[in-house]
Amino acid sequence: MNSFGRIFRISIYGESHGIQIGAVVDGCPAGIPLSEDDFMDDFARRRAGGRGTTPRVEPDLPKIVSGVYKGKTTGAPASIVFENTDTKSKDYDNLLYHPRPGHADYTGQQKYGGYNDPRGGGHFSGRITLGIVAAGVIAKKILNPVKVDATLVEAGGTTDIQKAVEDALKANDSIGGIVECTCSNIPVGLGEPFFDATESMIAHMIFAVPATKGIEFGSGFKAAIMKGSEHNDLIIDKSGKTKTNNAGGINGGITNGNDIIFRVSVKPTSSIGRPQDTFNFKHQTVEKLLIEGRHDACIALRIPVVIECATAIALADLIMLEQQRGRVY
Amino acid sequence: MNSFGRIFRISIYGESHGIQIGAVVDGCPAGIPLSEDDFMDDFARRRAGGRGTTPRVEPDLPKIVSGVYKGKTTGAPASIVFENTDTKSKDYDNLLYHPRPGHADYTGQQKYGGYNDPRGGGHFSGRITLGIVAAGVIAKKILNPVKVDATLVEAGGTTDIQKAVEDALKANDSIGGIVECTCSNIPVGLGEPFFDATESMIAHMIFAVPATKGIEFGSGFKAAIMKGSEHNDLIIDKSGKTKTNNAGGINGGITNGNDIIFRVSVKPTSSIGRPQDTFNFKHQTVEKLLIEGRHDACIALRIPVVIECATAIALADLIMLEQQRGRVY
Amino acid sequence: MNSFGRIFRISIYGESHGIQIGAVVDGCPAGIPLSEDDFMDDFARRRAGGRGTTPRVEPDLPKIVSGVYKGKTTGAPASIVFENTDTKSKDYDNLLYHPRPGHADYTGQQKYGGYNDPRGGGHFSGRITLGIVAAGVIAKKILNPVKVDATLVEAGGTTDIQKAVEDALKANDSIGGIVECTCSNIPVGLGEPFFDATESMIAHMIFAVPATKGIEFGSGFKAAIMKGSEHNDLIIDKSGKTKTNNAGGINGGITNGNDIIFRVSVKPTSSIGRPQDTFNFKHQTVEKLLIEGRHDACIALRIPVVIECATAIALADLIMLEQQRGRVY
Amino acid sequence: MNSFGRIFRISIYGESHGIQIGAVVDGCPAGIPLSEDDFMDDFARRRAGGRGTTPRVEPDLPKIVSGVYKGKTTGAPASIVFENTDTKSKDYDNLLYHPRPGHADYTGQQKYGGYNDPRGGGHFSGRITLGIVAAGVIAKKILNPVKVDATLVEAGGTTDIQKAVEDALKANDSIGGIVECTCSNIPVGLGEPFFDATESMIAHMIFAVPATKGIEFGSGFKAAIMKGSEHNDLIIDKSGKTKTNNAGGINGGITNGNDIIFRVSVKPTSSIGRPQDTFNFKHQTVEKLLIEGRHDACIALRIPVVIECATAIALADLIMLEQQRGRVY
Repeated sequence: MNSFGRIFRISIYGESHGIQIGAVVDGCPAGIPLSEDDFMDDFARRRAGGRGTTPRVEPDLPKIVSGVYKGKTTGAPASIVFENTDTKSKDYDNLLYHPRPGHADYTGQQKYGGYNDPRGGGHFSGRITLGIVAAGVIAKKILNPVKVDATLVEAGGTTDIQKAVEDALKANDSIGGIVECTCSNIPVGLGEPFFDATESMIAHMIFAVPATKGIEFGSGFKAAIMKGSEHNDLIIDKSGKTKTNNAGGINGGITNGNDIIFRVSVKPTSSIGRPQDTFNFKHQTVEKLLIEGRHDACIALRIPVVIECATAIALADLIMLEQQRGRVY
Repeated sequence: MNSFGRIFRISIYGESHGIQIGAVVDGCPAGIPLSEDDFMDDFARRRAGGRGTTPRVEPDLPKIVSGVYKGKTTGAPASIVFENTDTKSKDYDNLLYHPRPGHADYTGQQKYGGYNDPRGGGHFSGRITLGIVAAGVIAKKILNPVKVDATLVEAGGTTDIQKAVEDALKANDSIGGIVECTCSNIPVGLGEPFFDATESMIAHMIFAVPATKGIEFGSGFKAAIMKGSEHNDLIIDKSGKTKTNNAGGINGGITNGNDIIFRVSVKPTSSIGRPQDTFNFKHQTVEKLLIEGRHDACIALRIPVVIECATAIALADLIMLEQQRGRVY
Repeated sequence: MNSFGRIFRISIYGESHGIQIGAVVDGCPAGIPLSEDDFMDDFARRRAGGRGTTPRVEPDLPKIVSGVYKGKTTGAPASIVFENTDTKSKDYDNLLYHPRPGHADYTGQQKYGGYNDPRGGGHFSGRITLGIVAAGVIAKKILNPVKVDATLVEAGGTTDIQKAVEDALKANDSIGGIVECTCSNIPVGLGEPFFDATESMIAHMIFAVPATKGIEFGSGFKAAIMKGSEHNDLIIDKSGKTKTNNAGGINGGITNGNDIIFRVSVKPTSSIGRPQDTFNFKHQTVEKLLIEGRHDACIALRIPVVIECATAIALADLIMLEQQRGRVY
Repeated sequence: MNSFGRIFRISIYGESHGIQIGAVVDGCPAGIPLSEDDFMDDFARRRAGGRGTTPRVEPDLPKIVSGVYKGKTTGAPASIVFENTDTKSKDYDNLLYHPRPGHADYTGQQKYGGYNDPRGGGHFSGRITLGIVAAGVIAKKILNPVKVDATLVEAGGTTDIQKAVEDALKANDSIGGIVECTCSNIPVGLGEPFFDATESMIAHMIFAVPATKGIEFGSGFKAAIMKGSEHNDLIIDKSGKTKTNNAGGINGGITNGNDIIFRVSVKPTSSIGRPQDTFNFKHQTVEKLLIEGRHDACIALRIPVVIECATAIALADLIMLEQQRGRVY
């Protein structure tokens, strides 16, 4: 479903070329200062415009239409909406029978029996992540003083990201990258032993972000080649601080107070400026398809803020869940 | 929480040295043949006993105490219980103030204010995964003809797994590994575009399995160094079959009918046969701790069946959710 | 929380005098014809305007901003929004310390620490039920051929409802009423034995409608004075039809194929045109309060369509949940 | 589904004549003293044995098999199990085609395609409410100092309950009754404005209890014949105390600090000692059925403690949900 969270619960909706996209944030505590301006920094990070990003640039002006009164959250659901303005709606219907490789054209068409909106990817568009960012901005306010920081540490296999992007642009191709995320000032005790393990909740949200292919916490895939004597993080003081952080800040699903650290693999943008083979279901044969439209050479440039906000949403829910415990007894 | 699933919903409970552990499976369709024998093969795969696994060997005899009548599921919740028999309960209370590195002793103690059961890891014990395997056996019956297969493809950095285990045993150390899981005969259309993406649901379950550190679908972390022109899976026939499977069988969160393929990183067992430094909260200083007990040199040997069953549980829920669609209109 | 449903899941938001109110409908099947016109009949039934209803009359023009393409639902979340136009925003802040009897002024102020929007009841306003009606209109399309019909059968203790309303208006007072709801063409087998009993799901939704004080299914409160020999509904044919319908169409939480019948008690509107005593928290004493604003003498006149739509939402979720069963085995 | 609750979440399972019934209580705070003895008083209230109750008397010995260590809850799921001992398993299969009036035989058979366990009502048996009582006993400990008290105030239309029962026994018939429940020391601010209104949560649980036909809060069905000037509860002091309690302690879905008061209608036991007409699906005709077995002349005698515990479960969840709010800001 398009909602997430047990206490801090968000719902998102919208299509790339639809009238409006938005997010409804339920379970938000009352009294948090919130205005449209608060969203601007994160929207700017997400927005296209630089080299290697799509020329479709939306102003992304959020409108808070409920849940805020006199500049503060009321405790009622906060609804944030965005009008779609730059929607060049040419004919996309051919995508229903001649699907773009790497996109959700085929799966969407099959799942929804051909009733899905194909314009610009419809509901599958990365544009819908604007709702995740909006909810994440609120989540980050709840989390304070916990901080979540995600950065692109590598693209196209190199840390010289600018060069990698230029090369991809020249080749009419696209590249992927690695995003690293660090959550600091984390209290001990978030998360649950099994199904709502901290890693489970974060990974659940991260894979809700389009283009993510993998996630690893702490030592991650390196753990597979380490020995226990190397991997175990030794506790060195009474705050629970550990000498190393192979655990990525989580033991038994529960935060241990050290930074939560994880890395996310982002695939190269599926839309590229070259013709590609794909099955034409009308002609019943494989045919070349050239995707015209506008697209990013490296979607990984724009994804860190979405990863960051997705993480903040998961943590806000965990932190609000945890706050009930100590009180009862 | 210790429950998972929207339609096929499982709850697990129990402690390593408690009286009983078990699983309650709600939402199971009626009429599925089910007997205690059906669990035996998967329990055998999970059970300790071989080189590199703990000498604690429980008979793991499941008892179906509800939800089955005349050999078939009734549609009411199925409850499967296991008595704990081999519980050498020595004094574990020292773990509450002198926590084992890599384990959940410290986080459990903090989260539950010192009331957690420390014996053999208590509720954090890998033994509780018996409930996941039990539920997974039922899930696999629902999934049929979908197949889920997980195998250990590498341990201690090598495919000569037997040698890696012998080396670790000699060194009183432990090793991790990589489990690969393939789901075949998958229908097109499972999963949702955002928060309940197929990857989200599977990853959520996989990180509920103790010792997992990372998950990657299809191309996974290699996607970060691939070009779009290499990564895009070209659709080559009308069944939606693709030439490559970098997507791991999922586009836009939704299954595309190709195999779902993912890999999981498993850390080396935290209990090793060597003294390790860790903070003693009673003495307020770092002190050596030697974990006596019984343990696995390579937990990754026993984990594939748990990964397989965790995956089957996620897929069973997705498949039951999907079955409502086509009917309505 | 302000969301409901496991498969057909709705979220509502907004305030009486806020910018926008709305509903997000997730889990809606693809391919259902849907346009703004489809909402008009039910909105007209809900709208004020007749004798005994508030003079605040909003045009209630719904705008479908997502989830519909070429006149049909796409399977993605449908978002329906309403602009608030007739919001005479005088100063409502006195309600934060001098709460209106029978309203949620005091509880809202306490729950949200004084941050709630007090204008016209804010998020507690009956106006927010517009979102329930919007979602219910979609639910009724899914339910077809199941029909849900709710009518006001009594107001102010009489079936001469018009006279009762006139009397209340003359007395500057308000009256309550009884709404009866019948659901026909119900398939056998909806609902669950315990926590998701059909009655549980319907009652859950009905008490989400402001002003409801009681619900009874079939024989209801009369059951308490009946004998088993009178109360038992005898099955008289192979369709499961019963001679009487004291069960209200439900046995053991599960629909039996006969009509679901229930009655709802609606309290008199809390806002009346007379001064009333209530504690003034600023002056720390009981003082008279005269509620100026605009209000209904008999909210029960407008509530049947809300009851009907709330019921349709619960049934749509149950019916979609049930559709997964028969398929699996 | 057979689980309920967002933070304090319970699952129940079992059949009347199965091996074991039980409850799993997840989300229970750590450190609550809990032993088998704590359940005895409420089990005694629920147990059969007096005049008008079934001669089937089970010892109802609970066994806590997880979640408790050294006499206190650990924070891990608490599992409480009961062995079924007094299960005279004669042949019940005729109920699959010749269903008892008023029971769930027909609906169960239809919903589960004939795979349901028909012995003694199977999973539909009132005996399964033992799990609700077990969870309720824990919930009441969490609620302290909030108190929940339910009593039978009327049976067979009279307060001379003993006489009413004797009359029913003589007539081989059964009678219903009214249970009144009062929750005191309630904090202000529990519940949500719409879908998780306090009334919604309580009613959801109450209709999970077999044999309930109606629920009314405060003025309930009398509200329909009251005027606003009579119905409004005037706030008379700074604690929020009201002069009357027509609201039943709840405004806008949120508790106002006054007692929560509601009444529940309980139908007469469906099993009576007289032959009744019902359709025989094998013979395709209406035929007399005499229910032999053992049954209660007035199930309402045993139901108050179940109502009480069901209410405590709903309130425990609401109270734990609420405890997160004040903390955040």
